[in-house]
Amino acid sequence: MPVDQLPDTVEALHTALPGRVDNDPALLAPYTADRSGHRSSGTPLAAVRARSVEDVQAVCRIASAARIPVVTRGAGTGLAGGAIAGPGEIILSLAEMDRVLEISEENRLAVVEPGILNGRLNAVLADYGLWWAPDPASKDISTVGGNIAMNAGGLLCAKYGVTREAVLALKVVLADGTLLSVGHRTVKGVTGYDLCALMIGSEGTLGIIVEATLKLLPVTEGETVTIGAFFNTVEEAAAAASSVTRRGHVPAVMELMDNRTLECVARYSGQDISDRGAYLLIQCDGPAAAKTAQHIASVVANAGGAVEITTDPDESRRLLDFRRSAFPALEAMGTMLVEDIAVPRDQMAAAFAAIRSLEDKYGVLIPTTCHAGDGNLHPTFVFQGEEVPSAIWAAAGELFTTALDLGGTLTGEHGIGLLKRDWLQDELGQDQYEIQRRIKQVFDPLNILNPGKVFPQQA
Amino acid sequence: MPVDQLPDTVEALHTALPGRVDNDPALLAPYTADRSGHRSSGTPLAAVRARSVEDVQAVCRIASAARIPVVTRGAGTGLAGGAIAGPGEIILSLAEMDRVLEISEENRLAVVEPGILNGRLNAVLADYGLWWAPDPASKDISTVGGNIAMNAGGLLCAKYGVTREAVLALKVVLADGTLLSVGHRTVKGVTGYDLCALMIGSEGTLGIIVEATLKLLPVTEGETVTIGAFFNTVEEAAAAASSVTRRGHVPAVMELMDNRTLECVARYSGQDISDRGAYLLIQCDGPAAAKTAQHIASVVANAGGAVEITTDPDESRRLLDFRRSAFPALEAMGTMLVEDIAVPRDQMAAAFAAIRSLEDKYGVLIPTTCHAGDGNLHPTFVFQGEEVPSAIWAAAGELFTTALDLGGTLTGEHGIGLLKRDWLQDELGQDQYEIQRRIKQVFDPLNILNPGKVFPQQA
Ligand SMILES: Cc1cc2nc3c(=O)[nH]c(=O)nc-3n(C[C@H](O)[C@H](O)[C@H](O)COP(=O)(O)OP(=O)(O)OC[C@H]3O[C@@H](n4cnc5c(N)ncnc54)[C@H](O)[C@@H]3O)c2cc1C
Ligand SMILES: Cc1cc2nc3c(=O)[nH]c(=O)nc-3n(C[C@H](O)[C@H](O)[C@H](O)COP(=O)(O)OP(=O)(O)OC[C@H]3O[C@@H](n4cnc5c(N)ncnc54)[C@H](O)[C@@H]3O)c2cc1C
Repeated sequence: MPVDQLPDTVEALHTALPGRVDNDPALLAPYTADRSGHRSSGTPLAAVRARSVEDVQAVCRIASAARIPVVTRGAGTGLAGGAIAGPGEIILSLAEMDRVLEISEENRLAVVEPGILNGRLNAVLADYGLWWAPDPASKDISTVGGNIAMNAGGLLCAKYGVTREAVLALKVVLADGTLLSVGHRTVKGVTGYDLCALMIGSEGTLGIIVEATLKLLPVTEGETVTIGAFFNTVEEAAAAASSVTRRGHVPAVMELMDNRTLECVARYSGQDISDRGAYLLIQCDGPAAAKTAQHIASVVANAGGAVEITTDPDESRRLLDFRRSAFPALEAMGTMLVEDIAVPRDQMAAAFAAIRSLEDKYGVLIPTTCHAGDGNLHPTFVFQGEEVPSAIWAAAGELFTTALDLGGTLTGEHGIGLLKRDWLQDELGQDQYEIQRRIKQVFDPLNILNPGKVFPQQA
Repeated sequence: MPVDQLPDTVEALHTALPGRVDNDPALLAPYTADRSGHRSSGTPLAAVRARSVEDVQAVCRIASAARIPVVTRGAGTGLAGGAIAGPGEIILSLAEMDRVLEISEENRLAVVEPGILNGRLNAVLADYGLWWAPDPASKDISTVGGNIAMNAGGLLCAKYGVTREAVLALKVVLADGTLLSVGHRTVKGVTGYDLCALMIGSEGTLGIIVEATLKLLPVTEGETVTIGAFFNTVEEAAAAASSVTRRGHVPAVMELMDNRTLECVARYSGQDISDRGAYLLIQCDGPAAAKTAQHIASVVANAGGAVEITTDPDESRRLLDFRRSAFPALEAMGTMLVEDIAVPRDQMAAAFAAIRSLEDKYGVLIPTTCHAGDGNLHPTFVFQGEEVPSAIWAAAGELFTTALDLGGTLTGEHGIGLLKRDWLQDELGQDQYEIQRRIKQVFDPLNILNPGKVFPQQA
């Protein structure tokens, strides 16, 4: 649209949503970044803080009429650059739509607005003996709507599933302001195509999630058993994790850290672990936790792990804290580019070996943590300054290719956003890529919902 | 297409797939029906028994060129009329594509062709200590491809999930013969839109599933505990089932039968149970089975149930056989129209009450079984002859409306097919209906894949 029409749009937003539109550059600055390291080229047109479904519909109608892009934003913790907006774009923040609308114990579901933080929701649910399983490490700072828009994973996925398995129904506002209800309030339902699943993980490009009906689980009973094990090499640790899966065990948590990460944690926390080769953290919960954990501990020991096993809460916390400190330890060293490939579980050791050769080839360090129950690796590049150095982009590009060659995927849980849109076609192939674009057109014919995210901007 | 071109197409099929094309009317007759009671208006053009992906592609190319409809068929056990073909249509049977291509214990997955029977696959997997969770009552006679195309449910869904949760990736042939790979071999993956979920439950209208990568579970360890309980009324039994859920218990099986069904079972099997009001069958598995079952038994007893509880295999089988005999007992009485509404779990008692008033209003009997862990009811109309009497259609129509009014859905697991296409819009609403049709067009622009199923035939 011609630049001279933009002020009209801002005017229209102010009129429709008095007091909820910001266009002061100082207030807009935070919306030019998320936690990916990406930053947009400049200040967005305006930010709208929606409080209701009607607010969201009003924004979409105004944006559609003027053909102005709308970037939906939850808490902005995304690692793919999905929620950042630049010049000529409207930021639509849902952070203030954060109410719990219903909790039904009999139906084991909750109905919530999208802006509620995952951790806050779970605090509310705890009083009912219920929980919502998706548990990204960012759960205390990210929104349920953002979790759904990204199909977020976390530590517990191998046992309790990803976000897609934890959503029953959604209300979604389309680009033209239409309000759609997809999915079911029932446990099962097969009427028509599963548009609810299609919305999950669509990164704000198909519609704006304004309400979610969440499938809850009863709180897991019994004691949690924690296992920590150091290994000489990461390949050994990866093989140990694979053995646990092969033996039919399903731990709640199974996390792996390589020696590069341990070095960073050592430096950050002053612990004497920098010479260890790798660390595997496992937690078992549920009624058979003790028995399962004993079996797992012996599998891990046989695979070369130096095993500690405990049910003591303080001791467990200490073992868990190694893993939890990885992100802050890496963050303390510079700017991070957190990668997120996933490979079939039997290819984890191969993926680690490939990462080591990328380090040599590109002269960079790539500390890597891994959701080892899933085969989801987070190779992390750390650098100084704001700009990702070209050697790191080159290494990242080769990393993606490696993941695909191993039968894996570009992204296990963080999404495509801006970060990986140039590799999207490599994974999908030309035919599927075209179909996905056409599905986008069905929902958003004017291409105003998060344009340039997921799919490269078209000329 | 003009009728005089049809022979050319049959000719082309014979040439492309020598020995695998039938056009003898006697051989084609079975394809005019499934288990829904529906029958097409006449003999299809031809049936092709595919043996490979290339065969399927060849059929699609020929059909596309001639714009001839293709009806994909697994085992033909569907209850919605989805796999039946009539004049001018090609039946594409996948029953002979029934190989297990791979079993990976480390990745806990199997890759199979679509025509393998669910039960046969699970027999193979048992040797590995693994299983594929979807368990429609028809598992021994229905195909994995059909289960996926319908997003089949079963007895174990409330605990182990439906088919959608048990599929990692699919290979799909589109209407024009393009082969697409959707989903991931990895546990997690969020690249692009989730077309794998979109395919699941699409009833042969978006593409033809030619290969599936299935997520497996380790065999559940420990003893299974079975609970059977008779109640005075079905409302009491439904309330008992709701209490079990509300208390946070997750039994593997929770099935309910009303007194009409018990009467039929009594007549069929000669058991003296025709005066009972309802029967609730519950099974608990896993390491905490004994403890959980004790809790559940007391919840059920407090809710008015006369409880039997056992771990004895013969005794369990006897309790389970009540439930298993429902379908044959009803079938023995005449032609069945098996309905499949689902309601939120707290609305089960209301749904049963509504069914009783429909019986009075329309002067029909509606014996009803129910997956009570899910709120999925199978009200069943039994009549004499082939044609569904108009009073039964009227009652069924009102039943669907009732389900929607209670916050439920037209179909929990059996699908839309021909049977419920006239009600599809009532559930989806006009806006979503249009979007679903446009998604169909993205995949199948010529509308040759199972036209007239799911969506009403357009004029
Ligand atoms: C320390 C840290 C740890 C993390 N750990 C994990 C992890 O373990 N697992 C994991 O999966 N991710 C993780 N993340 C990434 C991030 O937290 C998740 O992607 C999260 O789901 C984003 O939620 P958000 O509310 O911050 O969304 P935002 O960043 O605001 O938005 C993310 C994307 O979703 C879209 N969006 C947001 N809300 C909506 C809505 N209501 N409707 C439509 N589109 C919407 C946006 O347009 C954008 O494309 C981590 C991030 C950090 C900083
Ligand atoms: C006694 C009995 C009990 C039953 N119990 C249950 C139950 O508990 N739960 C339940 O959900 N269902 C149940 N059903 C219904 C039926 O068995 C299921 O829907 C089953 O999944 C159908 O599989 P099929 O191989 O027979 O498919 P078909 O009947 O051959 O086909 C069903 C539909 O799927 C399509 N289709 C089949 N294969 C493919 C493919 N490879 N690619 C694309 N489309 C395909 C067809 O076009 C058709 O629309 C029962 C049926 C009977 C007769």
